[in-house]
Amino acid sequence: MEDAHAAMVVKLGYRGEAYAGFAEQKDPAIRTVAGELRRALELILRREVTLACAGRTDAGVHALAQYVSLPVSAGECALEGRRIIHALSGITPDDISIRGLFRADASFSARFDALRRRYRYRIVLGEAGPVLMRGSVWWLKSVGELDVQAMHRAAQLLLGEHDFKSFCKASSAEGISTMRCLEQLDVTRIEEAGEELIAFDVGANAFLHNMVRTLAGTLVEVGRGAHEPAWVLRVLEARDRRAAGQNAPAEGLTLCHVEYPPGALRLWDER
Amino acid sequence: MEDAHAAMVVKLGYRGEAYAGFAEQKDPAIRTVAGELRRALELILRREVTLACAGRTDAGVHALAQYVSLPVSAGECALEGRRIIHALSGITPDDISIRGLFRADASFSARFDALRRRYRYRIVLGEAGPVLMRGSVWWLKSVGELDVQAMHRAAQLLLGEHDFKSFCKASSAEGISTMRCLEQLDVTRIEEAGEELIAFDVGANAFLHNMVRTLAGTLVEVGRGAHEPAWVLRVLEARDRRAAGQNAPAEGLTLCHVEYPPGALRLWDER
Repeated sequence: MEDAHAAMVVKLGYRGEAYAGFAEQKDPAIRTVAGELRRALELILRREVTLACAGRTDAGVHALAQYVSLPVSAGECALEGRRIIHALSGITPDDISIRGLFRADASFSARFDALRRRYRYRIVLGEAGPVLMRGSVWWLKSVGELDVQAMHRAAQLLLGEHDFKSFCKASSAEGISTMRCLEQLDVTRIEEAGEELIAFDVGANAFLHNMVRTLAGTLVEVGRGAHEPAWVLRVLEARDRRAAGQNAPAEGLTLCHVEYPPGALRLWDER
Repeated sequence: MEDAHAAMVVKLGYRGEAYAGFAEQKDPAIRTVAGELRRALELILRREVTLACAGRTDAGVHALAQYVSLPVSAGECALEGRRIIHALSGITPDDISIRGLFRADASFSARFDALRRRYRYRIVLGEAGPVLMRGSVWWLKSVGELDVQAMHRAAQLLLGEHDFKSFCKASSAEGISTMRCLEQLDVTRIEEAGEELIAFDVGANAFLHNMVRTLAGTLVEVGRGAHEPAWVLRVLEARDRRAAGQNAPAEGLTLCHVEYPPGALRLWDER
C-alpha cells in the first residue's frame, strides 16, 4: 500500500490441527491460518491485503498469541475496532480466536519489529494418555520417566548467542544466518487442566525452522539418559542437524508470547 | 459373578465429545465409554462383565478420574496389573485414558461406596474463543463480564443438605429422593493453559441428573445481574426445575475426583 497511514495489528490464537501451518501455500486449496485471516480481512477492507506475522508456525502448531500486521489507509483507520473484531471473529472459523486489535506506525511489521518470541512445548509421559490437554501435548507413551533436572541443566548450556544450525531443519539452513540468541530454556514439571506435564519454556530473539521442536527432541535424549547434559554442547558445535535429537511432534508446540518495543502497539481505537 | 474373590477397580479419564455418555444404551451401535471399556475387559477376561461406575456422566461430559468396578475371581486376581493396564490402554480408543488399576473387597461398588464426587465446570467469556481449552469449556460468547463475587456468594447459600429437585432434570426427578449434600461450590477466576477462565468447583456426596450443569447455568444468571444472589434460595425452595437457570452445555463439565473410604482401594499388585 503506497499511501499507508498506519499499520493494523491483529493478535490471534489458533489450534493448529486443521491447518497446514500459518503461512499460505501456493495451492489455495490447502488450508492455512494466514489464508483464513487474509480472506476475512479482504472481505472487511474490500481490497487485497498482504500480511506479515511474528512467527510462521508449522502445520499442527498452536498459537495463543500470534501477531499479524498490514498497512492501512487513513480511511481504514477510521473503522471502529469493535466492528472489525466482531467481523473477523464472525468470518474466521471457530478454531481461530481473535484476541486483540492494535494500531502501529505505518512502517511497523509484526515480523521485523518483534524483539523476542516465547514458545511452550508440552510433554505427557506414560501409558495414561492426556485428557483435556489431548492434541496440545506430545504424548510420549513408550518412554518411562525423564530426568527433568538433567534436561534443565543441559538446557542452560545452550543459553546465549550461538550458531544453532544443528537445531534448524537442514533444508531451511542453507544461505541464511543460523545465529540466534536463546534467552530462556526452562524445563519444569507443571500441572495444567488436571494433567501432569513436562513443559519447555523457550524464549529467543527469533527462531529457526523447527528449532523449538529439535531442542525438545534433543533434551528428551538427555532426559531418558541416552546422553549426559554436556552432550548438547557437542550437538551445538557440530553445526549439523544430524547431530541433534528427533524433531518433536508439532502438536506439543504453542506460540505463547511475542514482545514488541514499548509503545509500538496502541489499542486500535486510541487516537 | 457368584464366586467373586475381589473387585477390580479401573480409574480412567476420557474426552466426552465422541461418546453418548458413560452408560451403555440399548442400541449397541451408540458409542459409550462403558461400552468401550466393557468390550475391552471382556476380551481380557474372556467372559461377560457388568460394570458399576462412580458417576454416569452425560453425553459430551469429560472425566479425569472416573472409577469403574467389577467382581473378579481368584484366578483373575492373579493377573499382572501392568499387563491388564497395557491391554486396556491398547484396546480402548486414544480418547480414553487408563489412569490406574486397584483391587477392593468383593462387595465393593464404584457407585455405592463412593463417599463424594467433585466436578469442575469451566467457562470462557467474550468474543475471543478458547484455544488450547477448546472443547473443554463453555464459550459464553455473547455475555459481557460476569460478577464472579456475586456468583460465589450465591453459591455459598446452596451449601449443605437440601432438596435439589429444582436442579435435577425433570424427567429424572420422579420417584427418587432429590436430597443431596452440597459440600463445595466455589466460583473463581483461574488461568489454565494460557486462557482466563471462570471455574466452578463443585463437591457433593452424590449428584442428581444435570445437577452441576443446572447449578452453573443458574449462577450465570446471577453473574450477569439478572437476579440477586439470594434468588438461588427461591429457586431451591421451588422444588421445580423450571425455576432454575439453563442447563449449561456438557462440554464445560469434567468429573475430577471421587473419594472412597480410606484403604478401600489397594494397588492391584499389592497382595
